[in-house]
Amino acid sequence: MTEGSGARRTAQILDATLHLVAERGYEGLTIEGVAERAGVNKTTIYRWWPSKAALLGVALTDAPLLRFAAPDTGSLHGDLLALAQTLVSLLTEPGSATLAVAALGAAAQNPELAAYARAFFADRLAGQLPIFTRAAERGELAADTDPMLIMDALAGAVWARVVLRQLPVEKSFPEKLATLLHVGVAT
Amino acid sequence: MTEGSGARRTAQILDATLHLVAERGYEGLTIEGVAERAGVNKTTIYRWWPSKAALLGVALTDAPLLRFAAPDTGSLHGDLLALAQTLVSLLTEPGSATLAVAALGAAAQNPELAAYARAFFADRLAGQLPIFTRAAERGELAADTDPMLIMDALAGAVWARVVLRQLPVEKSFPEKLATLLHVGVAT
Repeated sequence: MTEGSGARRTAQILDATLHLVAERGYEGLTIEGVAERAGVNKTTIYRWWPSKAALLGVALTDAPLLRFAAPDTGSLHGDLLALAQTLVSLLTEPGSATLAVAALGAAAQNPELAAYARAFFADRLAGQLPIFTRAAERGELAADTDPMLIMDALAGAVWARVVLRQLPVEKSFPEKLATLLHVGVAT
Repeated sequence: MTEGSGARRTAQILDATLHLVAERGYEGLTIEGVAERAGVNKTTIYRWWPSKAALLGVALTDAPLLRFAAPDTGSLHGDLLALAQTLVSLLTEPGSATLAVAALGAAAQNPELAAYARAFFADRLAGQLPIFTRAAERGELAADTDPMLIMDALAGAVWARVVLRQLPVEKSFPEKLATLLHVGVAT
């Protein structure tokens, strides 16, 4: 097996994991089911990921679906707006919404996944820190700003509106949210 | 059956519903299980709530556990702080956290519960509107403030920190969150 086909096979396994969690819930997730869906031998999966918790944990962190680069629009307001739009897309578009909600919902509700959930969110926060570093360098950010607080208010508002409240997102929502938080942290 | 005992019986049934969802998930919730736990005949439950979706929907809206009055501290900042503290308590205290996360998580992930979830959050938003009405009367609120946006950023940030990120809540978190949102909407 070449390295290229190994990476492709890993992507297929993680993708199959997210789809199975969305279809059957974490209770219905099995290594056997993932192997069947990804078209690989189950021993291949067991060799790398010893449990379904480990498999879903890695799927959360590594699946391309839940990855997003830090925006770099040239202003803090622009970056917060771009991030809000990315999160709205992730949680509303048919190709990603069901998978993201099922995977993150499972991570939140199964104690054996807690460490993976913490690792996932720590990794995503680290990925967005350049927004705040650059804003500070431009003199746009109050000195005592806590990036995690801004990220939680931003991502949490999108989650509350879309996943918990289950309302359609008005076109103006990302802009209003970015402005609310930008005003709250501006110098 | 007197009216008093009827109300007590309803409270027992809704309480049993929340406990069963927390213990067994929505998949494991049954009218029979609720009847057994609440010590009532299952025909009593079927008479009022024809399905487990209806039963959990009513439990969300009516259970005392998930009810909270609008704070009235005399200032917008004080009210936002009190609300943040209430939501942190709801989602972290042993007596309520597991039940609230399981019930709201189930509502977010089962399509047959979507209408009940929307009704629950609409009801809780309506209950907190006095915060914003009073702030406007005191001249503390920017004219174009959207209460739902503030509520979603506030409740969403608490949900993100506690339920999704699964981190302990620092003592300063409610104050920092209330200040962030207060600055964002102040006149």
